[in-house]
Amino acid sequence: MTAVDEIPWFASASRRKRYLVGVSGGADSVALLLLLVDAKFRNLVICHIDHGLRGRASTADAKFVRSLAEKLGLPLESTRVDVPGRMKSRHESMETAARNARHDFFGECAVKHRCQRVLLAHHADDQAETVLWNLLRGSHGLRGMREIREFTLKSGTKLEIVRPLLGLRRAELIGWLMSRGSRWREDASNAEPVAIRNRLRNEALPLLSMISGRDAVQAIFRATENSHEQAELEAWALTQANVLDPQGRLHVPVLRSLPVALQRAALVAYLNDAGLREMDRVQLDRLVNLLDPTQPGSVNLAQGYRMKRRAGRMFLEWISNERTEIH
Amino acid sequence: MTAVDEIPWFASASRRKRYLVGVSGGADSVALLLLLVDAKFRNLVICHIDHGLRGRASTADAKFVRSLAEKLGLPLESTRVDVPGRMKSRHESMETAARNARHDFFGECAVKHRCQRVLLAHHADDQAETVLWNLLRGSHGLRGMREIREFTLKSGTKLEIVRPLLGLRRAELIGWLMSRGSRWREDASNAEPVAIRNRLRNEALPLLSMISGRDAVQAIFRATENSHEQAELEAWALTQANVLDPQGRLHVPVLRSLPVALQRAALVAYLNDAGLREMDRVQLDRLVNLLDPTQPGSVNLAQGYRMKRRAGRMFLEWISNERTEIH
Repeated sequence: MTAVDEIPWFASASRRKRYLVGVSGGADSVALLLLLVDAKFRNLVICHIDHGLRGRASTADAKFVRSLAEKLGLPLESTRVDVPGRMKSRHESMETAARNARHDFFGECAVKHRCQRVLLAHHADDQAETVLWNLLRGSHGLRGMREIREFTLKSGTKLEIVRPLLGLRRAELIGWLMSRGSRWREDASNAEPVAIRNRLRNEALPLLSMISGRDAVQAIFRATENSHEQAELEAWALTQANVLDPQGRLHVPVLRSLPVALQRAALVAYLNDAGLREMDRVQLDRLVNLLDPTQPGSVNLAQGYRMKRRAGRMFLEWISNERTEIH
Repeated sequence: MTAVDEIPWFASASRRKRYLVGVSGGADSVALLLLLVDAKFRNLVICHIDHGLRGRASTADAKFVRSLAEKLGLPLESTRVDVPGRMKSRHESMETAARNARHDFFGECAVKHRCQRVLLAHHADDQAETVLWNLLRGSHGLRGMREIREFTLKSGTKLEIVRPLLGLRRAELIGWLMSRGSRWREDASNAEPVAIRNRLRNEALPLLSMISGRDAVQAIFRATENSHEQAELEAWALTQANVLDPQGRLHVPVLRSLPVALQRAALVAYLNDAGLREMDRVQLDRLVNLLDPTQPGSVNLAQGYRMKRRAGRMFLEWISNERTEIH
């Protein structure tokens, strides 16, 4: 395997800081944890979520992680969440329910341990599966996981998610674990849509490799590498475009003069600044249409917000029962 | 099928202009031709290439297209090219050899008929296969065919390639042909890497559809829709960046200040202007490295060109045996 000091994050990360480490008990997260310990990271908090999706095996996973924590002398935070219950009561997909449960848990751990940094064990094979899966369910362009991503939970807690192993292959990690005689739990999962992921991994990617005579995981992984560079380019273009007026509202004539991809980027940046994330494509297209002066002058958004166009400007209003505030 | 007047290109294209129409004899191109005739396009020139790859079947394809042209009362340009011979003598891949032979032929037809517009029958299924194939062999992001693309041949002839059917599904075209009792030649091909394409079409895309429970062709087709918008954004950013000096050479300090994706875009645009296309990623990265003042000051490129960095500028030189000209 790539030596630890060749993994960019390992080479530069401070050993003295505290890190929350997501450990399911599977090979990937056990490898991450042991790599960290070997590389003299001392201030680690193991965070284990039992998604309640694997019955007795879930309990065994939790037990395995507990004994690993004891052996390593590291603190453990462990929780059991009721993903199926959450799916029912909140009408969420399994993926959304599991993700929200994870976020809540990491948020609690972050507060308790005064630590925003969360390390997760996703690797290049996960990335290729994610990209393919996003592609199949309608992403625009190739969308994968980022190595470092900061975001703010609804509770206001900030998290910095880091994926130090994103450049490594699953086989490298397993080979490394085997070479040092370490154990892990087979199939300990992150409650992602396992059936689809498994079929992408075990059927689709091998078939694509066979057809093309190349390693499809590698090809897809590389193809997403510059999607971050595209984001940089977009951000650069956005600073050139000067879309905000001195009051911080969107300047409609300026926006209209831009290519549509940049209009969308400007709208997303404006909404993100206001805490509105995860706009879907349909909503975004409605906002782009708002630039057309022949269209009605406002679009209702999630969380009680409305985007309004008036006098050559666009801005968010917050609609409460009683009054309308300009955001 | 979508009514012809719902296909954007059909709705707006002038019926009086002349068009060259690529017709292999297969269902797709026969459908394109008949759609054009039905929609009262009169000034059409049928262009048929026999790639010499299917033995006797190739001859039968050519005969079929000839009789179709006679029935429709349209002029026919037909040629037989020796793709295998071209592959050997020029060390080109089958794909490159076939593409170059096509371009040469369309260039000749364009001159003879004083017509730059070439209509090709690629559809959404072709697009999904192309995108997947490009992805597997190392494209960055999703790269597909464009509905309209202009380019200049080495001979100086300009061509405008139009793909009016790019939004339609193969099954729609075949259904339409069957409903009007029209015939076509099975398997008449465009000499693209047929084995790989067939496997992507018949194995990979159906498997991806089955795994995801969605139509993979549709998903991939949609995912590429905004890659053109990304290209627009890139072009806009490039005009903002002002990378050329008054002599038309690349301005190194300006380039260095840009995000790397824009550096690449600037290099590609500069090279395209000089007729150098199809830079692969490795070459492009070497050119980006040339921006680093600690690196050697030149990189050799294809076709006898060299990129040179000197006094804060980068420019192409043409290296002949005898002398060095600044391009």
